[in-house]
Amino acid sequence: MTTTHPPLLSLADFVAHWQGHRALTRRVIEAFPEDPLLTFTAAPPMRPFVLLANEIHLVSEMTLEGLSGGGWTEPDWTAGFRSKAELLKAWDALSGRIAAEAPMADPAFFARTHLLPWGEMTGWVAAIYTIDNEIHHRAQGYVYLRALGIQPPAFYER
Amino acid sequence: MTTTHPPLLSLADFVAHWQGHRALTRRVIEAFPEDPLLTFTAAPPMRPFVLLANEIHLVSEMTLEGLSGGGWTEPDWTAGFRSKAELLKAWDALSGRIAAEAPMADPAFFARTHLLPWGEMTGWVAAIYTIDNEIHHRAQGYVYLRALGIQPPAFYER
Repeated sequence: MTTTHPPLLSLADFVAHWQGHRALTRRVIEAFPEDPLLTFTAAPPMRPFVLLANEIHLVSEMTLEGLSGGGWTEPDWTAGFRSKAELLKAWDALSGRIAAEAPMADPAFFARTHLLPWGEMTGWVAAIYTIDNEIHHRAQGYVYLRALGIQPPAFYER
Repeated sequence: MTTTHPPLLSLADFVAHWQGHRALTRRVIEAFPEDPLLTFTAAPPMRPFVLLANEIHLVSEMTLEGLSGGGWTEPDWTAGFRSKAELLKAWDALSGRIAAEAPMADPAFFARTHLLPWGEMTGWVAAIYTIDNEIHHRAQGYVYLRALGIQPPAFYER
């Protein structure tokens, strides 16, 4: 298959985009004091940020598996983190795996159709959904931080 | 330039991604009653949702201009909307322009470097930043709606 223009998006662009968002989310996790991270919500019935971060973590892990050709297994949503240190440790381990494994993915992943636990979609839609879901829940953490009187990290820094 | 795999992302994929997010943000605007849309904040000093939506609108309009080869002029941030009807009318007009103009863009836009009011970046980074900023501020609107006791639209529906 040939194109007459440079690609809109390279695999390296995609990985850099993902990791930039992960670095920002890590700074948001760090900005929370331990107790509100685990218990505070700005608007019930919304979950505390540790559970939003856990969802981001599980979906990201699943997406890395899918991107690496390992299939799409629905995460165990009941898995969770009991402390900020435990969450950050898992966060960094997954960022390390993404750095090592994602650049080796087959670029044809993005145009192919995949069967996820929540339906059939292209690899592009599945991959960008993972990042969109991270931005969505992280932004809710921004409101939690503001409600706690804490200045969140700058959105445009990655 | 040739590639040995289908492109990760086509211009049509990108436009569909953008418009899907715009349709969701429109549902979030609609979910606000008039008065809280214009005045409510869940966490001062955060702005009411009409001003977050105004920022999304102005950045999106600027990005459509850039994507269409028209340059990058910093928006007039003091421009704003005085009612939900006025905001929705501008929203729909811009969605119509995106539907008509974005598919005609030069796909080489994405790999090229552009000078935005906030720095040099590739077209891909500029374009995805616009959508990321929309997701970020819209998600803050989700918390506002929850704080008002209103169920927001489903995130996964576009």
